[in-house]
Amino acid sequence: MARIVQKYGGTSVGDVERIKNVAQRIKAFRAEGHELVVVVSARSGVTNELIARAQALCANPSEREMDQLLAVGEQETIALTAMALHGVGVDAVSYTGAQAGIFTDKVHTKAKIKTINAAPVIADLKAGKVVIVAGFQGINEEGQVTTLGRGGSDLTAIALAAAVQADKCEIYTDVDGVYTADPRVVKNAKKLDEISYDEMLELASLGSKVMQTRSVEFAAKYNVVFEVRSSFNTNPGTIVKQEVAYMEKVVVRGVAVDKDQAKVVVSNIADKPGTAAKVFRALADANINVDMIVQNIGRGGLANLTFTVPLTEKAKAQLTLAPVLKEVGGDVAVDEGIAKLSVVGVGMRTHSGVAATLFDALAKAGINLELISTSEIKISVVIAKDKADEAARVAHAAFGLG
Amino acid sequence: MARIVQKYGGTSVGDVERIKNVAQRIKAFRAEGHELVVVVSARSGVTNELIARAQALCANPSEREMDQLLAVGEQETIALTAMALHGVGVDAVSYTGAQAGIFTDKVHTKAKIKTINAAPVIADLKAGKVVIVAGFQGINEEGQVTTLGRGGSDLTAIALAAAVQADKCEIYTDVDGVYTADPRVVKNAKKLDEISYDEMLELASLGSKVMQTRSVEFAAKYNVVFEVRSSFNTNPGTIVKQEVAYMEKVVVRGVAVDKDQAKVVVSNIADKPGTAAKVFRALADANINVDMIVQNIGRGGLANLTFTVPLTEKAKAQLTLAPVLKEVGGDVAVDEGIAKLSVVGVGMRTHSGVAATLFDALAKAGINLELISTSEIKISVVIAKDKADEAARVAHAAFGLG
Repeated sequence: MARIVQKYGGTSVGDVERIKNVAQRIKAFRAEGHELVVVVSARSGVTNELIARAQALCANPSEREMDQLLAVGEQETIALTAMALHGVGVDAVSYTGAQAGIFTDKVHTKAKIKTINAAPVIADLKAGKVVIVAGFQGINEEGQVTTLGRGGSDLTAIALAAAVQADKCEIYTDVDGVYTADPRVVKNAKKLDEISYDEMLELASLGSKVMQTRSVEFAAKYNVVFEVRSSFNTNPGTIVKQEVAYMEKVVVRGVAVDKDQAKVVVSNIADKPGTAAKVFRALADANINVDMIVQNIGRGGLANLTFTVPLTEKAKAQLTLAPVLKEVGGDVAVDEGIAKLSVVGVGMRTHSGVAATLFDALAKAGINLELISTSEIKISVVIAKDKADEAARVAHAAFGLG
Repeated sequence: MARIVQKYGGTSVGDVERIKNVAQRIKAFRAEGHELVVVVSARSGVTNELIARAQALCANPSEREMDQLLAVGEQETIALTAMALHGVGVDAVSYTGAQAGIFTDKVHTKAKIKTINAAPVIADLKAGKVVIVAGFQGINEEGQVTTLGRGGSDLTAIALAAAVQADKCEIYTDVDGVYTADPRVVKNAKKLDEISYDEMLELASLGSKVMQTRSVEFAAKYNVVFEVRSSFNTNPGTIVKQEVAYMEKVVVRGVAVDKDQAKVVVSNIADKPGTAAKVFRALADANINVDMIVQNIGRGGLANLTFTVPLTEKAKAQLTLAPVLKEVGGDVAVDEGIAKLSVVGVGMRTHSGVAATLFDALAKAGINLELISTSEIKISVVIAKDKADEAARVAHAAFGLG
């Protein structure tokens, strides 16, 4: 008997049949005597349909109205899921974000959770009901509907797990867990039984796509242990927590590839104090996420700045840089034909030679490194996009992850 | 410059193009300097889709969850309508029923409005915003979403018109107004410029289908003058109000036909006190709407009871009557092949001979009367369903309504 928060994503509740399937799973958990809070996303596709309608009506829809609009996706799913449970004889009640007491700040479309008043949810749990909560949404002090941004439903689940002091939090998705590499690319990739928050954070931010960074950060902050697992089978997934009992020799935990990056080279700018700051201040003001910055000095005392940006922000980055370069001089070139490969593992903190092993393996495969950046538990390199899959396989093998 | 509440039904906001059309209409009203509260329904078809999903999940869905589910239809439309207004440069803000302060009792799926806290709506009107409110929905004291039942969006509009002390309330629909008869049946039916609440009530309850009875009753109670008009053209519609300036000779205002009725005959029951009461108490307890009751005494001191019920409640009525008839004796027969024809007009209060004119005209057309019932401003007869259209044309002509 435990108190469990479960989160089912849009694919898991994509249609009536899948919702019935989720209801059967929940029924089985209830039969074991567990108290259950179930967080659901909008049915897959619904959010995109709503956005398409919004954009057909207004080139730049108001963020407040966008939240009012998108919240309906999850509100539909909670009611349908509650009904599906009633249909199989399980007592259940649905809660919108507002009803679940999820209070956020006023920043529409990417609100932050401020507090959760979980008393009504806990009361219904104690009364023997399964509580179904709309993911992704909350309410601000003024009674306006807010949404939490991408990956918001995971965040709802983890925040609720903290608020109701759950014993477990289970994130159901369409993958079996976190793998040592993308199984579609690296055939012998293995599912990890456990992973630390830090490693998960690096993997999430590096394109493993299982979860958004902020949900993992939130879990780490409130020490919420969660499990990523599939809603389509009953296999155990990957448990994400603070401390992981490693075997000594496990240094690298996984290999991640991110193909949705572009490399930006700002060349021939004056090498004097403040120039680089001007470039990155402008990008920051435009909310562009910059990564893997390298500066070097070229001929004639002119400097080159190289960095990566998400592919989706490529055009915005160029627009933003144009006026800055008019002021400080220099040229800008963007290369979309790149990918970022990273190897991650907390064991790297105490083991040397990881970088050497990686560079060596890639060199032997004839793969050139364009940029390198390292942290305590991660080494990332930028390589040609068409070599990315091969590089993942090479690195995976080099660290014996298969 | 006036404060106007407008209501657009599901057909008027059925898709993105129609929502744009509504936005253009609203923009034109704003350009005239009016303050506008706009109540919208769910896009046509959406509510039925949601109900279909609910029923696929649960044979008898919980009414609380049904309200939680159905409220999303209008919440989508308010956000889209606000965005469409932004798209044409009109300041607008959307309100769910809860945000608009529409507090109801706890009766899910057919809640009654208790109070409206219109202060936020009025503040936004004064700030120059068009306020878009979700029809059909409210919130109860416990923070649970409720819906107002059929025709609920009209009710929202009329109740808001009272709460914000609007100068006008306009109900936009897919018909031009209230006609002297159904124009699809009676070719020379005319649109009425004005009609009284009482007449509208009789016409609404008698199958003219323009509006539900309770919205008209609410308007009468709070003396809200409203206009029924088309959202597809700019023709003036029909104004519904307390007193209508009639020309003296206008006695009958309209002819309505209701084909969705069944005639129930309970025969050979004991003619003693309490028998009829038992029959109608059972039907009332089952929430079956009974109309046009006639009792007569047959041979051997046995009585016959004849009445009409909505076609949708035919099976329920038979089920309900079975145990009663076991107790008091008697047989039951149901006839679906009937229709109810009614002529309505407040002028009937002071004019005699209306019944005679109607019966005479129908007799000349060879149309037999199975039941007759009269009120101060209405005469209804039950006739064969296959004669209903002809009867409408005959009655329409007999009272010179063309």
